[in-house]
Amino acid sequence: MRRPRRKAEETREDILNTAEAMFRERGIAKCSIADVAQALSMSPANVFKHFHSKSALADAICERHISRMIGRFENLHETAPAPQRLEIVVRKLMEAHLQDLRDNPYLFEMIFIMSEADLPSGHRYKELIDALFIELVRHGTETGVYRCDDVVATSRYVAAAFASVLHPALLVKSSAEELRDRCAGLAKLVNAALQNQLVK
Amino acid sequence: MRRPRRKAEETREDILNTAEAMFRERGIAKCSIADVAQALSMSPANVFKHFHSKSALADAICERHISRMIGRFENLHETAPAPQRLEIVVRKLMEAHLQDLRDNPYLFEMIFIMSEADLPSGHRYKELIDALFIELVRHGTETGVYRCDDVVATSRYVAAAFASVLHPALLVKSSAEELRDRCAGLAKLVNAALQNQLVK
Repeated sequence: MRRPRRKAEETREDILNTAEAMFRERGIAKCSIADVAQALSMSPANVFKHFHSKSALADAICERHISRMIGRFENLHETAPAPQRLEIVVRKLMEAHLQDLRDNPYLFEMIFIMSEADLPSGHRYKELIDALFIELVRHGTETGVYRCDDVVATSRYVAAAFASVLHPALLVKSSAEELRDRCAGLAKLVNAALQNQLVK
Repeated sequence: MRRPRRKAEETREDILNTAEAMFRERGIAKCSIADVAQALSMSPANVFKHFHSKSALADAICERHISRMIGRFENLHETAPAPQRLEIVVRKLMEAHLQDLRDNPYLFEMIFIMSEADLPSGHRYKELIDALFIELVRHGTETGVYRCDDVVATSRYVAAAFASVLHPALLVKSSAEELRDRCAGLAKLVNAALQNQLVK
């Protein structure tokens, strides 16, 4: 009996895992699709079937990394009061970026480039961030701690207020100490706004 | 009687004016110090005496432009209530960037590059923005509209909250319409926070 053919989805995951490990190790500039194929004992054509360019491959790696990163925070500290939860979640997300910047500079560089370019993973990052803030603001509103008429619109402004500690392009410009202080200050500001009726 | 020698300060201004006009017209990449010197009927050595590199010249042009831009807003709408004044001043500053981006793309590009690099005009821009927000928050606090214990620290967080509409690196990523909506939303958020006692 022939073994069932490997599913395309599994092959795609294998390519992503191997490419991510290689990009993290050497940087994307020093890896070609051919290198990735060789490490997997695959033909370059087979890799190209799944990812039409190195940029598409990098984009998929970033998207997966970002989805996992933000996924870790979605249900975090659900039992904490909304203002503390907002502060903790934003700080942890910022720390996750700082950790990548420190421990996986090649990966952070990729995320940085993706965030600058008009690529799917950049849009996906924005969507995930927006969804995360909607969840945080909704939680506060439903538990009666935040006073907010339009959760979705308000969440978008709240997310924008934290750009200087969450956006890769601004994050790289400050020291970790400065970012931590700023993050705490921004959380205090945003929480004060959300706990009081927003002026129309 | 010999004419008094032109003051160094005047020569410096002439160089800045001519270089700025040329950089605005053709872009910095297509202008050399020699071109600037020729337009002024000066020797390149004389220009170099005032600016040691094209980057130093660009930096000085950006610094002057930014100082003038922010200077226009410092005493603006001093009679308006602080919350309206904050919203108007931030919006006008954002609009000034948008106008440069539209009408003087070469100049905006220079400002963008300076803001990315660790150059004096980038630091100066940050200082001026900080000073502008301190003035706005202090005005609100002194007129009893804002409740704020530490004007300087709070102003820094307020300035950070507006990074996504004021920082050249983020400004370029959104449409004018999106930026205007976000700017109004951020002002509402910040004003709600400042008008209520900030939670310790």
